[in-house]
Amino acid sequence: MKSHPSGESFSLKGRFWIEGPQGAFLGHGRIRLLERIREHGSISAAAKSLKMSYRRAWMLVDAINRQCAKPLVITSTGGKGGGGAILTENGQRAIQQYWEVSRRFEEFLQSENAHWSF
Amino acid sequence: MKSHPSGESFSLKGRFWIEGPQGAFLGHGRIRLLERIREHGSISAAAKSLKMSYRRAWMLVDAINRQCAKPLVITSTGGKGGGGAILTENGQRAIQQYWEVSRRFEEFLQSENAHWSF
Repeated sequence: MKSHPSGESFSLKGRFWIEGPQGAFLGHGRIRLLERIREHGSISAAAKSLKMSYRRAWMLVDAINRQCAKPLVITSTGGKGGGGAILTENGQRAIQQYWEVSRRFEEFLQSENAHWSF
Repeated sequence: MKSHPSGESFSLKGRFWIEGPQGAFLGHGRIRLLERIREHGSISAAAKSLKMSYRRAWMLVDAINRQCAKPLVITSTGGKGGGGAILTENGQRAIQQYWEVSRRFEEFLQSENAHWSF
């Protein structure tokens, strides 16, 4: 590889998200919510751990599920703020795929950095 | 390539920018400003064409130039809003490099799309 002495000060940064049939589908924030639901077993506990309102968390989960052939999260009965929630196999796979893309995305950004010098 | 019938509805989206030694260096907005400076030959005309204040455009150019060994834009004398501005060779190269990265970035996003199905 060629040497780019002044290129070390410049780096490529970026963000990504997955767009679904109805707009935003999965980004970093929603993946974090799904991971917390997996961890806590309920939407309300997940929301609380993220200092997010239950209403907002529920709406995000609903926005995710509505765009999929198979839901990513299944909730069991219970009143507002009650009941449990689990990640489906599809949900587990979505989280895994997200982090795999994230790794390749970071690799892409890294691979571009050698090109920069101004 | 494998067929992913339900994957067509999902696509990877993203944005990128170049971070310099003092933070944000070049993103889509700044590149557009540089291109307008090249086109119009002055910061004030470039700013006007983007419905941006002269002050803001000047500060963006200053923020860009301060981070480089060689400036991307050189201004000739003239009062506030007067004088001319030209892109240096380094400035021309920055625009070209930005769009080359942009093309590879879009290619990366496209290359990931086949992986998605939910």
